Amino acid sequence: MTAPAALPVTPDDIRAAHARIAHHVRRTPVWTLPSAFGHDGPVSLKLEFLQHAGSFKARGAFNNLLVESVPAAGVAAASGGNHGAAVAYAAHQLGHKATIFVPEISPKAKVDVIRRMGAEVTIGGPRYADALFACGMHIAATGALSVHAYDAEATIAGQGTVALEWEEDAAGGLDTVLVAVGGGGLIAGIAAWFGGRVKVVGVEPENSRALHAALATGEPVDVEVQSVAADSLGARSAGRLVTEIARAAVDHVALVPDEAITDAQRALWRDFRIATEPGGAAALAALLSGAYRPEPGERVGVLLCGANVDLAKLDALA
Amino acid sequence: MTAPAALPVTPDDIRAAHARIAHHVRRTPVWTLPSAFGHDGPVSLKLEFLQHAGSFKARGAFNNLLVESVPAAGVAAASGGNHGAAVAYAAHQLGHKATIFVPEISPKAKVDVIRRMGAEVTIGGPRYADALFACGMHIAATGALSVHAYDAEATIAGQGTVALEWEEDAAGGLDTVLVAVGGGGLIAGIAAWFGGRVKVVGVEPENSRALHAALATGEPVDVEVQSVAADSLGARSAGRLVTEIARAAVDHVALVPDEAITDAQRALWRDFRIATEPGGAAALAALLSGAYRPEPGERVGVLLCGANVDLAKLDALA
Repeated sequence: MTAPAALPVTPDDIRAAHARIAHHVRRTPVWTLPSAFGHDGPVSLKLEFLQHAGSFKARGAFNNLLVESVPAAGVAAASGGNHGAAVAYAAHQLGHKATIFVPEISPKAKVDVIRRMGAEVTIGGPRYADALFACGMHIAATGALSVHAYDAEATIAGQGTVALEWEEDAAGGLDTVLVAVGGGGLIAGIAAWFGGRVKVVGVEPENSRALHAALATGEPVDVEVQSVAADSLGARSAGRLVTEIARAAVDHVALVPDEAITDAQRALWRDFRIATEPGGAAALAALLSGAYRPEPGERVGVLLCGANVDLAKLDALA
Repeated sequence: MTAPAALPVTPDDIRAAHARIAHHVRRTPVWTLPSAFGHDGPVSLKLEFLQHAGSFKARGAFNNLLVESVPAAGVAAASGGNHGAAVAYAAHQLGHKATIFVPEISPKAKVDVIRRMGAEVTIGGPRYADALFACGMHIAATGALSVHAYDAEATIAGQGTVALEWEEDAAGGLDTVLVAVGGGGLIAGIAAWFGGRVKVVGVEPENSRALHAALATGEPVDVEVQSVAADSLGARSAGRLVTEIARAAVDHVALVPDEAITDAQRALWRDFRIATEPGGAAALAALLSGAYRPEPGERVGVLLCGANVDLAKLDALA
């Protein structure tokens, strides 16, 4: 890590984003357990799966729509599901049209949320990158406002508001936070907020390691994506802004096998009656599996970031 | 309501119970929304479904096992499921044998929890009263310690610790709390804690109204039980202690149709990604359906008290 002086998103940007979106998003609870998940020290859970549209993505979506001027063609986004649901929700609340492009792997729970918000949904292509391409064509043709899922300053600043709230609300403080990574907008915002004051550890599936690869090479590179969490963490490459911020302010990225992710989903349902999607349980998977091993007494934060799961699928796991 | 001077469970009993069980149960989060569920005022959710064994029942179970001396035959309980799961969990944690009697209506989710805790499970009889009878026979034969699901001072004092935490943690205070009622141990504990300082409103299914009937008659009476929430709220009569406390310190009992309960389950999953069982959503059903209509600005608390639901059943609703 180098000094985070010149990052493209600053704590002030995040503070401004928080003031902007505060009336539109939920301040989700922070729950600190004296010890849990085999860790001999406090575990602070940020229950962000309780957010509007089922994930943290509502934060970045509102921040984009509130800083930009939205044309009559409305907004457009490509999404594994959660970003699309959030953009559709924010557009609906603010009175804009939304068109969302999703890949075929998106679960029904996510597509249903998008449709319920009145957005137009186009499903096509096997992977996130295909949806992104189709979305780009639509934007070129209509002039709709693009809301990037992760690699935009307004998106990163919006997602960073999770960290602002977490720091204010975590009883007893935080040494480390574990954060699942897809394209990296969330961890970039969180790292930009903490700026090294708290150790930020990313968590990626072994076989969907876009940020891990970007940090190893120093810039975004394409990776193969094959994971149970691909519908939320399956970006083929990390963003440029994301990589720049992560190089400066993310400690490292821990890798977890898919079985650790489903084990974490199972543990959250069995022991806490918390239903999460695979990506929403990935941060916990690092703690449960030992992919991240805290010191005794270390104050560990775990972000539970999304719950747009098909209940039948969760039932089959449990 | 009359003056709560001589109640069989006092705030001091509840304070002592809280000190006794604090290391064994979770201090579940209180989440205050500025406005929600159509109410133009703050709504304070106590997320008690995050408790060990999936409901508030762990509180009363631990309090019983920690105040009584447990014989070699262990403990025994009759339960629609949640109390049994909690007693099994507490017994397991404290190193005692547990035998749990459940009626045939108990969902698989609950029976699974009981078995996972290493308890012996006997399923028999269509209703809670049948399980209670079988449990009584077992206790007479073996000398096992009986842990009553609701009508015992230690149970009521344990459940009352929910209210102690809620009052301490509710940002901005509480005017009213909505509490689902089965046999009434939970609402009795909560009413004994608040002692009229906060309006306590019970919520029962229209066709499972044991406490409503007891308050109308002045003493426990048998009612017919036919509700989607019968596995947790389906007591055939309220307890004697419960009725005594409720007459003094419960404002009234609101009645909700089964459809309002399933609507509340659906709303909690759709808008909050919170999975609850029917009984766990019943308090919210009173607010959503208008069975309880707060004044504008009234600070309303809603207890989400249990989540031992079969995910496939919730999926079918959603």
